Amino acid sequence: MKNAVGKEIPSEILGYGKVRPFTGAYTNIGGNHTRVTSNIKANSLKKGAAGEDKLINSIEEVIDKVGLKDGMTVSFHHHLRNGDYVTNLVMKEIAKKGLKNIHVAASGLFKCHEPLVDLIENQVVTNITLSTISPGPLAKAITNGKLKNPAVFMSHGGRPRAIESGELHIDVAFIAAPTCDAYGNMNGSFGKSACGVLSYAYADAQYADKVVAITDNLVPFPASPVEISQDKVDYVVQIEEIGDPNGISFGPTKVTTDPINLKIAATTARLLDEIGYIKDGMSLQTGAGGTSIAVADEVGKIMKSKNIIGSFGSGGITGYFVKMLNEGLFNGLFDTQCFDQVAIQSSGINPKHMAMSATQYANPNCKGCLVNQLDIMILGATEIDVDFNVNVVTGSDGSILSSSGGNNDTAAGAKIAIVVSNLLKGRLCVLRDVVTTVTTPGETVDVLVTDYGIAINPRRIDLIEKLKDSELPIVDIQELKAIGERFAGIPKPLQTTDKVVVVVEYRDGTVIDVVYQPK
Amino acid sequence: MKNAVGKEIPSEILGYGKVRPFTGAYTNIGGNHTRVTSNIKANSLKKGAAGEDKLINSIEEVIDKVGLKDGMTVSFHHHLRNGDYVTNLVMKEIAKKGLKNIHVAASGLFKCHEPLVDLIENQVVTNITLSTISPGPLAKAITNGKLKNPAVFMSHGGRPRAIESGELHIDVAFIAAPTCDAYGNMNGSFGKSACGVLSYAYADAQYADKVVAITDNLVPFPASPVEISQDKVDYVVQIEEIGDPNGISFGPTKVTTDPINLKIAATTARLLDEIGYIKDGMSLQTGAGGTSIAVADEVGKIMKSKNIIGSFGSGGITGYFVKMLNEGLFNGLFDTQCFDQVAIQSSGINPKHMAMSATQYANPNCKGCLVNQLDIMILGATEIDVDFNVNVVTGSDGSILSSSGGNNDTAAGAKIAIVVSNLLKGRLCVLRDVVTTVTTPGETVDVLVTDYGIAINPRRIDLIEKLKDSELPIVDIQELKAIGERFAGIPKPLQTTDKVVVVVEYRDGTVIDVVYQPK
Repeated sequence: MKNAVGKEIPSEILGYGKVRPFTGAYTNIGGNHTRVTSNIKANSLKKGAAGEDKLINSIEEVIDKVGLKDGMTVSFHHHLRNGDYVTNLVMKEIAKKGLKNIHVAASGLFKCHEPLVDLIENQVVTNITLSTISPGPLAKAITNGKLKNPAVFMSHGGRPRAIESGELHIDVAFIAAPTCDAYGNMNGSFGKSACGVLSYAYADAQYADKVVAITDNLVPFPASPVEISQDKVDYVVQIEEIGDPNGISFGPTKVTTDPINLKIAATTARLLDEIGYIKDGMSLQTGAGGTSIAVADEVGKIMKSKNIIGSFGSGGITGYFVKMLNEGLFNGLFDTQCFDQVAIQSSGINPKHMAMSATQYANPNCKGCLVNQLDIMILGATEIDVDFNVNVVTGSDGSILSSSGGNNDTAAGAKIAIVVSNLLKGRLCVLRDVVTTVTTPGETVDVLVTDYGIAINPRRIDLIEKLKDSELPIVDIQELKAIGERFAGIPKPLQTTDKVVVVVEYRDGTVIDVVYQPK
Repeated sequence: MKNAVGKEIPSEILGYGKVRPFTGAYTNIGGNHTRVTSNIKANSLKKGAAGEDKLINSIEEVIDKVGLKDGMTVSFHHHLRNGDYVTNLVMKEIAKKGLKNIHVAASGLFKCHEPLVDLIENQVVTNITLSTISPGPLAKAITNGKLKNPAVFMSHGGRPRAIESGELHIDVAFIAAPTCDAYGNMNGSFGKSACGVLSYAYADAQYADKVVAITDNLVPFPASPVEISQDKVDYVVQIEEIGDPNGISFGPTKVTTDPINLKIAATTARLLDEIGYIKDGMSLQTGAGGTSIAVADEVGKIMKSKNIIGSFGSGGITGYFVKMLNEGLFNGLFDTQCFDQVAIQSSGINPKHMAMSATQYANPNCKGCLVNQLDIMILGATEIDVDFNVNVVTGSDGSILSSSGGNNDTAAGAKIAIVVSNLLKGRLCVLRDVVTTVTTPGETVDVLVTDYGIAINPRRIDLIEKLKDSELPIVDIQELKAIGERFAGIPKPLQTTDKVVVVVEYRDGTVIDVVYQPK
């Protein structure tokens, strides 16, 4: 069947089940929902004894304690990013126990999680659900169909939605805790492996049957501040090192120095100014890419020159947003993950730098998530097509490069969602007739700013009207594609097998696209 | 039937239902539990529109919006204590709508809630559930059987347990919010009506079908810090004044100046020192009564003289505990309600002064509540009996004076629970053969310190052993009662009707006692 972005989707996928096809960005949003029950084993006590001792000697021991069995789902959070040791350490012990068919439901996995590839090959791990992935051996293994069942890529808001609705039931959550006491109170902002806020782990802590904190900084009771509290934690394990904080920042998390990208950023800021979006009370989110941060920088300059005070910055937070907060350009920051040390330090001390849960950030089925308040979203893309559909999951060769993250959440919520990109990347044109994989539907994407011109989604007649006398280089998207193709040629269609390696869910849980194993 | 504290309890009570009798302090603690589902109406959005506007013009209008109907349960929190305006304002509008048989599930009600008496008489309100009450017209009306169905008195930990287990389902929670933005992010520590932490409202915000924030300090988005977040809030109403913060502190929340009470406090501290409980890592909770705070003062002096650093102070927090925190006597404070302005201000700025949910505080069916970590608990009592059962609910004349609060939660958890009291109050002896109403079972109460001697629960052979050579005035509890009765005479049995006016639940939801209407 064809879904609402025109993608042919199987009605049922082996190892995933029946497919609910994507029916439009807003068709399943709203209405009544039920948060599922969650199961608790109370930590009992007798007078003078503080219940069962939560402190367990080793990861090996705690796996027995929580009763982990074949086929169960374990979860991890990704705030230590490419410096995370916990996922590998836990999965190694799970493998040692001879467990099989484990579902790894991590909020994100990185290059450092290469050891999972062996576990995939041995069918210790047969299912993976995630919202963030970076290129590397694991992404390659998934691309090449090594995983028994298709990986499921959820958005940052889709993941807590799936957890709260019961679609994603977590048996055991393992939470890397940079600071923790022996009774499970923890925070992410302090300790030798501080990673900042633990936002993506909040749903796991609330809804997993068993919750294990793994820390390399066991402090006397009570850990303070308490970010995840003891009443949600079954066990605590102290280990040598939970990660290498140097692995948190990688890739560009600073303003780009490339003159073309700086020009794209300046053009974007000028466009935002011309349409009147840079004003008191405005809110802004960008990714951590160099061009995105450059847009924040350019917007910041305009804000300062006009004495504008914004409402909030949000998302993954970089030092650049911390600087904007400290300069008084925003009233607050809402943070789901810290991208660098400046952000990590700020998260621990500035009450206006606030952790938010993934539900508060982007869950479409809550009483109002933050993306609904967002004015301006600067998006990245590996490809975009003439219908403004965005791909952040695959390269044009069909290999997995990333996952949905907050891309389709923020695009759906923000008053304006702008993709910033060079028109040509390597020898390829980012603009396509149809993107290889749709992550974010075109109906939610408003503008594409490139080094060869700006294309505005024809749905946004309000923007077209506002910019009709602008001197900005506004062109039709077809025209922009033609320019790109003059340089890069017309891409050959991608050849794939019929094996589905990734199911890409839209934030509402419908299937917006699938990734087939490339030939 | 007789329950485990020897009280004769009906097996079924009209307007309450089937009774689960109290079977012992620890018999229902532990084991597996399920947090209930909760119902959400998602706040939907279309591109460029931030979902349904949450800001509603008036309380009257919001009552229509949330679909309040006859027989439903509405909830309130009590952090504004005797200065709260919100409960009365909401209930007045509910009455105006002609609604009947409303269940008021407030965490606490005070003298200021006198207007509820009329609503009880008109059967607008037919059920009340609470954990805190102060003497006044409402307590009198309940004593006199005006309420159609028996009031249910829960402990501070029993209330969130009942909410999470589904025993107490809240249709609409109305949350007085001293600072709030138009999308429902709120905190209690700032604003003209600041009341400090909003802890008792957290369970309501998480589990009520509808959540309404009522504020007199609507701030630009985002309110910071966020104590209860927007994803849990359906509507926001701005009104002139949510309360009078001067009503928060009443009664003694300072060290007593009465020499006899000071002597009781000093004796208590000396006892704690002799048994070795005043040591590094210790934790302490007291009520807000003058003698209790004097105990904290005396303990603090010993801590200072021995350079002892404790772990935490907890419970309702007074300025005295803030002072102890600031002097470095504790690593942290866990706060469920602020009892004075010093505590309120500290709650907003000191990261070591931490809000905790009522579940984290005292819910016996979570993964480990704070009372399990508590070393020393100083309890108040209106009566205590020779089996060490404590009454905090009724006077000896059967009239309602208070509710369970955290009394039986902390007694069950703390390594030592000490009742401090004058032996004689007015012309009555607090020591009885059997207390009028059992709130806290004697098996969890360890010591009674009075101005005429100290009685130790014979179950605590460890304490008796430790104190066998002490010069402290340790006497048998029967002897102490005899002393009291020499002054006060033997009390006449209380005459009651057979109408149950209050069902007193133990923290596990079993019925530990009932209050009959006095004759």
